[in-house]
Amino acid sequence: MSESTNQSWGGRFSEPTDAFVARFTASVDFDQRMAQHDIRGSIAHATMLAGVGVLSEEERDTIIEGLKEISEEIARGEFEWSVALEDVHMNIEARLTAKIGNTGKKLHTGRSRNDQVATDIRLYLRDEIDVIDAELTRLREGMLGLAEQEADTIMPGFTHLQSAQPVTFGHHLLAWQEMVARDQDRLNDCRVRMNVLPLGAAALAGTTFPIDRHVTSELLGFDRPTENSLDSVSDRDFAIEFTSFASLLMMHLSRMSEELVLWTSAQFDFIDLPDRFCTGSSIMPQKKNPDVPELVRGKTGRVYGHLMSLLTLMKSQPLAYNKDNQEDKEPLFDTVDTVRGCLRAFADMIPAIRPKAANMYASASKGFATATDLADYLVRKGVAFRDAHEIVGKSVAFGIEQNRDLSEMTLEELRQFSDTIDADVFDVLTLEGSVAARNHIGGTAPNQVRAAAQRAREALATRA
Amino acid sequence: MSESTNQSWGGRFSEPTDAFVARFTASVDFDQRMAQHDIRGSIAHATMLAGVGVLSEEERDTIIEGLKEISEEIARGEFEWSVALEDVHMNIEARLTAKIGNTGKKLHTGRSRNDQVATDIRLYLRDEIDVIDAELTRLREGMLGLAEQEADTIMPGFTHLQSAQPVTFGHHLLAWQEMVARDQDRLNDCRVRMNVLPLGAAALAGTTFPIDRHVTSELLGFDRPTENSLDSVSDRDFAIEFTSFASLLMMHLSRMSEELVLWTSAQFDFIDLPDRFCTGSSIMPQKKNPDVPELVRGKTGRVYGHLMSLLTLMKSQPLAYNKDNQEDKEPLFDTVDTVRGCLRAFADMIPAIRPKAANMYASASKGFATATDLADYLVRKGVAFRDAHEIVGKSVAFGIEQNRDLSEMTLEELRQFSDTIDADVFDVLTLEGSVAARNHIGGTAPNQVRAAAQRAREALATRA
Amino acid sequence: MSESTNQSWGGRFSEPTDAFVARFTASVDFDQRMAQHDIRGSIAHATMLAGVGVLSEEERDTIIEGLKEISEEIARGEFEWSVALEDVHMNIEARLTAKIGNTGKKLHTGRSRNDQVATDIRLYLRDEIDVIDAELTRLREGMLGLAEQEADTIMPGFTHLQSAQPVTFGHHLLAWQEMVARDQDRLNDCRVRMNVLPLGAAALAGTTFPIDRHVTSELLGFDRPTENSLDSVSDRDFAIEFTSFASLLMMHLSRMSEELVLWTSAQFDFIDLPDRFCTGSSIMPQKKNPDVPELVRGKTGRVYGHLMSLLTLMKSQPLAYNKDNQEDKEPLFDTVDTVRGCLRAFADMIPAIRPKAANMYASASKGFATATDLADYLVRKGVAFRDAHEIVGKSVAFGIEQNRDLSEMTLEELRQFSDTIDADVFDVLTLEGSVAARNHIGGTAPNQVRAAAQRAREALATRA
Amino acid sequence: MSESTNQSWGGRFSEPTDAFVARFTASVDFDQRMAQHDIRGSIAHATMLAGVGVLSEEERDTIIEGLKEISEEIARGEFEWSVALEDVHMNIEARLTAKIGNTGKKLHTGRSRNDQVATDIRLYLRDEIDVIDAELTRLREGMLGLAEQEADTIMPGFTHLQSAQPVTFGHHLLAWQEMVARDQDRLNDCRVRMNVLPLGAAALAGTTFPIDRHVTSELLGFDRPTENSLDSVSDRDFAIEFTSFASLLMMHLSRMSEELVLWTSAQFDFIDLPDRFCTGSSIMPQKKNPDVPELVRGKTGRVYGHLMSLLTLMKSQPLAYNKDNQEDKEPLFDTVDTVRGCLRAFADMIPAIRPKAANMYASASKGFATATDLADYLVRKGVAFRDAHEIVGKSVAFGIEQNRDLSEMTLEELRQFSDTIDADVFDVLTLEGSVAARNHIGGTAPNQVRAAAQRAREALATRA
Repeated sequence: MSESTNQSWGGRFSEPTDAFVARFTASVDFDQRMAQHDIRGSIAHATMLAGVGVLSEEERDTIIEGLKEISEEIARGEFEWSVALEDVHMNIEARLTAKIGNTGKKLHTGRSRNDQVATDIRLYLRDEIDVIDAELTRLREGMLGLAEQEADTIMPGFTHLQSAQPVTFGHHLLAWQEMVARDQDRLNDCRVRMNVLPLGAAALAGTTFPIDRHVTSELLGFDRPTENSLDSVSDRDFAIEFTSFASLLMMHLSRMSEELVLWTSAQFDFIDLPDRFCTGSSIMPQKKNPDVPELVRGKTGRVYGHLMSLLTLMKSQPLAYNKDNQEDKEPLFDTVDTVRGCLRAFADMIPAIRPKAANMYASASKGFATATDLADYLVRKGVAFRDAHEIVGKSVAFGIEQNRDLSEMTLEELRQFSDTIDADVFDVLTLEGSVAARNHIGGTAPNQVRAAAQRAREALATRA
Repeated sequence: MSESTNQSWGGRFSEPTDAFVARFTASVDFDQRMAQHDIRGSIAHATMLAGVGVLSEEERDTIIEGLKEISEEIARGEFEWSVALEDVHMNIEARLTAKIGNTGKKLHTGRSRNDQVATDIRLYLRDEIDVIDAELTRLREGMLGLAEQEADTIMPGFTHLQSAQPVTFGHHLLAWQEMVARDQDRLNDCRVRMNVLPLGAAALAGTTFPIDRHVTSELLGFDRPTENSLDSVSDRDFAIEFTSFASLLMMHLSRMSEELVLWTSAQFDFIDLPDRFCTGSSIMPQKKNPDVPELVRGKTGRVYGHLMSLLTLMKSQPLAYNKDNQEDKEPLFDTVDTVRGCLRAFADMIPAIRPKAANMYASASKGFATATDLADYLVRKGVAFRDAHEIVGKSVAFGIEQNRDLSEMTLEELRQFSDTIDADVFDVLTLEGSVAARNHIGGTAPNQVRAAAQRAREALATRA
Repeated sequence: MSESTNQSWGGRFSEPTDAFVARFTASVDFDQRMAQHDIRGSIAHATMLAGVGVLSEEERDTIIEGLKEISEEIARGEFEWSVALEDVHMNIEARLTAKIGNTGKKLHTGRSRNDQVATDIRLYLRDEIDVIDAELTRLREGMLGLAEQEADTIMPGFTHLQSAQPVTFGHHLLAWQEMVARDQDRLNDCRVRMNVLPLGAAALAGTTFPIDRHVTSELLGFDRPTENSLDSVSDRDFAIEFTSFASLLMMHLSRMSEELVLWTSAQFDFIDLPDRFCTGSSIMPQKKNPDVPELVRGKTGRVYGHLMSLLTLMKSQPLAYNKDNQEDKEPLFDTVDTVRGCLRAFADMIPAIRPKAANMYASASKGFATATDLADYLVRKGVAFRDAHEIVGKSVAFGIEQNRDLSEMTLEELRQFSDTIDADVFDVLTLEGSVAARNHIGGTAPNQVRAAAQRAREALATRA
Repeated sequence: MSESTNQSWGGRFSEPTDAFVARFTASVDFDQRMAQHDIRGSIAHATMLAGVGVLSEEERDTIIEGLKEISEEIARGEFEWSVALEDVHMNIEARLTAKIGNTGKKLHTGRSRNDQVATDIRLYLRDEIDVIDAELTRLREGMLGLAEQEADTIMPGFTHLQSAQPVTFGHHLLAWQEMVARDQDRLNDCRVRMNVLPLGAAALAGTTFPIDRHVTSELLGFDRPTENSLDSVSDRDFAIEFTSFASLLMMHLSRMSEELVLWTSAQFDFIDLPDRFCTGSSIMPQKKNPDVPELVRGKTGRVYGHLMSLLTLMKSQPLAYNKDNQEDKEPLFDTVDTVRGCLRAFADMIPAIRPKAANMYASASKGFATATDLADYLVRKGVAFRDAHEIVGKSVAFGIEQNRDLSEMTLEELRQFSDTIDADVFDVLTLEGSVAARNHIGGTAPNQVRAAAQRAREALATRA
């Protein structure tokens, strides 16, 4: 990168910026990511300026043509970025003036870098939100597909990582789907709230030119212009709200990852992940490591950290724009990259999970997973719930001692704890019976799982 | 607190809980805050159970009567909480059984503490959200009132804490109002998303009793039952989303606080805060310290910390419920308390701010705040913006040297930098002219400030 | 609590503090925890003031006697705290003056609440550090005892939660002990750095009285007085450094907790936790949940949150004291309480762990845990490591296909992958051989485990 | 980068890694930063292996020569990194084997990537710590120099951003120096604790080769080998401890930055920053913005975020190595870069600060900054401190009403509040008198400032 002097604010200065300071304070290394959005914003700005008579139609056309050429230079990787020009905005403007001469100097009329960058970053983030939204849909569809396929596959349901009650694998996958559905809702709320145009706020107070912000807003696909110029250049809520969404999403992915890692362990052995999502060891030839879920779990911290970074950044800042705000971009960009990468990996991987139904079933058969069913059976026979709980507790203690599950005991043995127990008890002590009996909205009964998946599919379809 | 043994799960255990462990793992010290919500949930549960025939109408009435009596005991501060009974749920149930006998033991039919606590905390948070929402409205109204009153009061607008361009104090207050308006929107989104009923998920898989979750949902004012039982008992998104809202709000309050502290300093001296919002010093008798904004600024960290605490808590937890989740309450409760306290202080304090208009005006008169106006003037006379910027830069350098503002120079002096400058330049170099010229939506012109305040008032009215 | 007016700074004020504001800004609800430290500091201050002639000996004695009586009132729970008196300092001073009259008003000579609270909190924290240090020692001793006992107990060593190589349970426990040892070192560094006396900084600039800070420092057991008065009243590094220590400790405890939860699952079944560290379920009678490790794991977030809270609090604060700093106490106090509780639980629980050696051994026998040993065997026979790795990889693939471990194959079968393999290979394919062969400092060979435990015991003994 | 297949663990795999997964899980993009440290570690490892007879001397020399050539290729920017080879380790090893043939395959004997990366990162961080330590020294020296020069320059000392008591600018600078001195101490503690060798832990359990870890430790400048192999590959404490140090440092720099921004505002106008540390505005030609302190203040959030990221990363990870840990590097690297940049900027900038002594003095003259001196004066005349405080409070109220400072009142006026006041009161009401009177260790008296600076210089000298 070249380092010639920035001509945009030099008039009042008696000494050039220190070379290290110039590099330290420049943002072009990372904000060039928004170059195309910057150009898109400039084209709309020029169009509006011509509409209100600040530029002539000819000037507008010259500017737009120049900007389009620059856009292509950038797309082709031929644009030479200069640290001395500080940021993406000045780099592009300087190039424009080099190309089209003095007319280029008119583009910055009625705006400032403060409202310009606020516009660029919203355009950038809006595009990324749309990509992420599509990945969330793809992930949910993958989950729904597998859930429907595994609606009858019985596995142990855990609380405290102890076998609690049998559930179906499809039901478990729908729990994941619910998490992601909430995330997608939050992303949508964030998009709605951020989709307003700050351009026109200029440095902080608005401009003396007769701009028409409604026009620019419409040209750029925003819902409306912002209401207050000071707020427009100092607001970074959208970045924080997006990163909050991302933190919740990563939290959910970390929970799924934790379960995938558990389930691929030799001790659980509930699922198989295809080799293409795993890696091996440089020293232990037998290893097949669930790298993708582990790495996603690890990336959770990265996004949490960016959220904390942005919240700290904005704390106690007086209005309006301060240089601190330059630090909003890298955490946001890296959050976007991380979320996109993790979602792609998950959306590819989830449908490829191969459940080991026999292992799941065998595991559910142990651990007295139908103890609650026995208690419920007793309640239906007239025992108060708390008393039923006590009876079953003793049956379980006996079972542990004898190393036998409830369904493996004889009727006689069971009846030593309560003579309310009859032969029909064995219907409720099977895993299939237990699962089928939880037959209400939200319950794990296979038909409920299928119905819930269907409702989720419809909700997804309504979004599109 | 008494420490007798918890009878609710003892059957399988051969050894009582260690006394320290009992205290360490008990939650009743803090979750008793949800006692009335727990009772409200139990009344709805009993009503539904009777509706589907699991309880008789008589049993239902006995239970509800007992619960109402307990509610009053708690309200009167007469309820004796026991650590040995672990949590608010078991304390109330044990008391109910003590009062009404065996019928009390039937209340827990078809539910578990896992879905019960998830219900209680949503009922609690929903009530608190409604209180906070009202305080946000009150705060916004206070800001709008003061903004309208100070729509013409000129002050320096800052970027980089350097005088940039004149704005009006009313405009500045509207910037604050915009921040709070976004916060209120986020709170509303959070409320909508959280208002679903988890009850009926039981421990994790649903229940074998023929419950009707739509009935319970309606009785408790929820929009619908949740879709998945595993998710229902393990989801804490609402707590995190609320704390994210709170973090953004506190960030905004910290920015306002920072400005209030600056403005009450002897160096700025822009406003006066009534004595009742300040405190003094134990050693320096002259001090009048802006304690309220400082303390609010300090409390920002507390809420950020709770957000990080909750995100960390949920990271990597396998489904469904784990004991870790007990740690969700204290950060949430303290966030609620902090937000309520800070909002009350701000909603009281903002309308009581007494601006010192003369000081603000004098401060705006210095620092070349109308330099941009001169540049815009030149542009309107045909100079390209970048060239105009350069001309003004030199004028300012001259002014610094001469210790005179632009409006204090003679026409002749100004013309040494550009002969495009004419006598009409002095119209744009006044503060009043500068402010009035920013006359577009979002700009600082007094009529725009009034119009924006009016629009905000209408938006607020529509909410109610 | 009573709410009469604070007389300590009222002279300049024309209006009393708003009642809500008084409550909102008061700290006595939580800072009364430092009451005894406040009194200790005041006694030292009075002693020093008498030494330099600012108080008479009689005044000093009267003050000290009064303070001691107040100390006892507080210890007996008879002291009436008043919110109107703001904080612990004014409450105690007001009581002193009420008891001994005008002499009490002389105690505050040459100090301010700013340096007073900075002193109190260091005295408080130093005491707590000493308690925590003792618990860390107890925990390490418990780990070392169990490690020595289980130095030969073979279990699978995991990477990526996949069986990697056999290790001994004692070796695993020593890994835990190393983590805690580093934590204890960090705590010690923190104690050394914080043990300096801020008293004498007064409000911010020092005092005009001829105080002798070396005397006060020595009386209170500090290493020396602080070097700069502005820094003394604004520094909260010690709280952050302590919370950083606590965050690392909680991170370590969360890792151990995670393993304890895994190991008590039916799928791993490596250990048994005594019933007294577990709790049951209100609905599932068979459950025995590892509540203590789960809760400790959950409390990790709480401490991380406090760290973030304190860092945010101090960000961007101009010197010297600001009201924000009042918010330093609650996060610190709760961090102390959390760490003490978790350490007590762990120090009690660790020695009570009952390993299930047979299950561990069986688990280590599967999963090709000695594959690396085979590779090393080949290397010792002259095969390059990378080639050996390839050969073993193919053997493992064959084993997976045949569902047999390496040690279960015939020599013939093994030789199809490399004819370098001879009958002596079976010596290195046993778990005992594998473990014993890692016989260097830090390795898992039982004699190395015992030697490492011995070194750790000696290091611990040297501390005392 | 090329993407051929990684041969280091492929034997057991039936399907190549997915191309996206390969990119997603590869670390070579960022871990190549440790390439020279990796080579340094490998040279030491090869030397040790030859020492214990695992390699021949000829093999050792061939390997070392090859590694040195690779080191130069990397230094010259000619090394071609391959994502397919995953990480820096495999890239270098593959290149080595390409250069020297089969002997290259022997280098990985007795180690694993798990202990290799743990070694590399410590070597890297140790180098960076030494650079940072030198910058901290340079910064402290700059502060001390300016402090000595400005030991007599009077400015207002603030609490609550209200003028409290006069201090000297030198004294204020020494407060900054104290903060940085503590940071440097913490950095030193961190270095000592991290300087142990993990190499030899191999994958997690140690190795079956007769390695001598003491030799490798000495060759690489470590104090000793680590004590436990499981801990060695899973420990990331050093990264967290370093980032904790960095967070405290950034917190301190943010406080200094806040003050620099305040002081360069037109309202304070206490100092001038040379143009080379400032930048201008693209729209407001008069602006000279304190970009460097603002940017540093903004970067605080970045480092706090990395701390949170690392703490979250390690939470709840079971031993030993998991893929999650790959995420330790980027936060650490960026923390190092941020700290180095900010320290360089500050160490350059601090000595270049130009105080405006007259403005500072004038500001200190207002705001009743000597009120405490009057109170102390009264105490010395026998008034109890609390009564003196009340008298002065009334004098100040009178002064506010009359718009005159205490030193501007007549003796008569002062005596209406207490007849203990005599003509000698005016000696203590001057700024010079006030400052000189705080004449004890840590006080703001100019001679104390000079003495403290001298002690700090000596402490710095002792370090070197």
